[in-house]
Amino acid sequence: MGVFEAPPNLSGHEQVVFCQDKHSGLKAIIAVYSTALGPALGGTRFYPYESEADAVRDALDLSKGMAYKNALAGLDLGGGKAVIWGDPETDKSEALLRAYGRFVESLRGRYYTACDVGTYVPDMDVIAKETRYVTGRSTENGGAGDSSILTAYGVFCGMRAAAEHRWGAASLAGRTVGVAGVGKVGRYLVKHLLDDGATVVATDVSEQARGWLATNYPQVQFVDDTDALITSDIDVYAPCALGGALNDDTVPILRASIVVGAANNQLAHPGVEKMLAERGILYAPDYLVNSGGVIQVSDEIHGFDFERAKRRASQIFEITGRILRTAESEGVPPAVAADRMAERRMAECGRLRSIYLP
Amino acid sequence: MGVFEAPPNLSGHEQVVFCQDKHSGLKAIIAVYSTALGPALGGTRFYPYESEADAVRDALDLSKGMAYKNALAGLDLGGGKAVIWGDPETDKSEALLRAYGRFVESLRGRYYTACDVGTYVPDMDVIAKETRYVTGRSTENGGAGDSSILTAYGVFCGMRAAAEHRWGAASLAGRTVGVAGVGKVGRYLVKHLLDDGATVVATDVSEQARGWLATNYPQVQFVDDTDALITSDIDVYAPCALGGALNDDTVPILRASIVVGAANNQLAHPGVEKMLAERGILYAPDYLVNSGGVIQVSDEIHGFDFERAKRRASQIFEITGRILRTAESEGVPPAVAADRMAERRMAECGRLRSIYLP
Repeated sequence: MGVFEAPPNLSGHEQVVFCQDKHSGLKAIIAVYSTALGPALGGTRFYPYESEADAVRDALDLSKGMAYKNALAGLDLGGGKAVIWGDPETDKSEALLRAYGRFVESLRGRYYTACDVGTYVPDMDVIAKETRYVTGRSTENGGAGDSSILTAYGVFCGMRAAAEHRWGAASLAGRTVGVAGVGKVGRYLVKHLLDDGATVVATDVSEQARGWLATNYPQVQFVDDTDALITSDIDVYAPCALGGALNDDTVPILRASIVVGAANNQLAHPGVEKMLAERGILYAPDYLVNSGGVIQVSDEIHGFDFERAKRRASQIFEITGRILRTAESEGVPPAVAADRMAERRMAECGRLRSIYLP
Repeated sequence: MGVFEAPPNLSGHEQVVFCQDKHSGLKAIIAVYSTALGPALGGTRFYPYESEADAVRDALDLSKGMAYKNALAGLDLGGGKAVIWGDPETDKSEALLRAYGRFVESLRGRYYTACDVGTYVPDMDVIAKETRYVTGRSTENGGAGDSSILTAYGVFCGMRAAAEHRWGAASLAGRTVGVAGVGKVGRYLVKHLLDDGATVVATDVSEQARGWLATNYPQVQFVDDTDALITSDIDVYAPCALGGALNDDTVPILRASIVVGAANNQLAHPGVEKMLAERGILYAPDYLVNSGGVIQVSDEIHGFDFERAKRRASQIFEITGRILRTAESEGVPPAVAADRMAERRMAECGRLRSIYLP
């Protein structure tokens, strides 16, 4: 599993940087897919990969996804992502995080980092001791804080756009929405849905998460698991937990007519978007509707302003609507229309730097 | 063949940067072994590797070698090296070289490049259009020009040190030196040797190289091939062509009692240095005596001054003498003494940055 010799869907990256600090044990890979639209931004995943090849594969895959997400969100940012190869429980230390920050700094702003699986706001504060090119810091340190807030808000905006496209009204009032996963993002989404007049059915493997929701939103009905959820009488399905929620097993039995959720990589494999289209289910691509988080943290680059970031996240409504209409008129699944729009923006705006400015 | 999972002798690198530009076809790997002593400096090899793994292996190997070479030469430089994966005859273009220069620039001086196999002074001039961090440019562009000059001079200095160590006088006068390879470096070395009063026996596969030498130094005697050279009645053997000159076949039949040459990687495999020691042959490690080239080009960083660079290259005499004496007193081959000295300098001077300077 090489970088240049990676499979076609994982190749084409501009720069992939292996970083090592023997003393702290740091082994990190920073992958920059594209800087056509600006500095590459994406989080740092801290994960005990089985092998270096697995770590490389994840970095290549996730950084490409960020390029498309940032392009679609209208951000002036390229796409990148980093992985730290190790167990966050046992390997994370101030020295390791700061060594990582020093390597981020060495790229001098071609890559901005942020939180991802295994890294948290306090970690970004530590990394920020060594580099300016970090987002997702705590509010005390000028950061955007918990990015779940605008992630959930953006998903809600995308869901309203899908509702308008399908039913003619940009509202979930009177609809039943099934939310799989009511952790950090899902619980904020539930509030938006209830405020909008929707009925919410939920499931979560975590007793703590269920308990929190039952206490705060007793009107939410719980079902045992995701299978029970997707076979319930729901209008909209919102996958907000692990990836691969839409697969060969779930799509055939799904009762919802719209799928819009916060989870990353909802399609288990290429082709699932066609299965959804054939069943008449309207699917708004995950990386299109869940970009509220990156919109929130990237606002830190300009000095964080929550209201400005929220206005920008609200544009997910317009962008989703446009993608769904384009997909319909071109007779392609929305995921294909979204990919094309992202690629067009990277190509058309990226080439503008060829116009020399004295 | 990974970066983190590389074999022990090829591992421990600080940073390895894969760079790609789809339009120009650039695929480059910049390997930084260490920046403990300063920015990493090393040339760019342009070569049609069979596979990405081969390219990675070469980058890891060569960059580590540069770290040791630069450390031993007393330069305030770390070690790095880059490879461009492609055929320099067909793939080299202005766009590709400039794309490469842009990636060198993106590291903001953590890596300085220079010429190596497949890249030449005019290529460095092109790369310099995109980055400040390039040496080996033409003299018209502020460069050091042909680095063969001080490479040969440094080898001559190292040979004088070996002569003094073995025979008591720092001169080759009255000795017979066998020079294998009289190309760019070898022909300059021949002149130093003749000026010093040595007898020179030479061989070269290139008719052109032989012709040039026969015209300019008719007193040099030629033999058919390297086997004929090393079994001649020579006092010193100077391998100045391909790597691997000292191997299981050549060492047992070698008649010289000193080996000092310009070629890189003269030892075909670990252990050959012991075979030489057991036969009583004094071997001055290649990366110790052939650092005149990197001394010459690195002087460009300070605004090139040939006389300053030559003075610095002349210190190869003292350093080689010190290594040979240390090796003798510690009962180890000179290659081991040289490695230890390089590692000690990197560790001891590298840690000085921990002393904070306001």
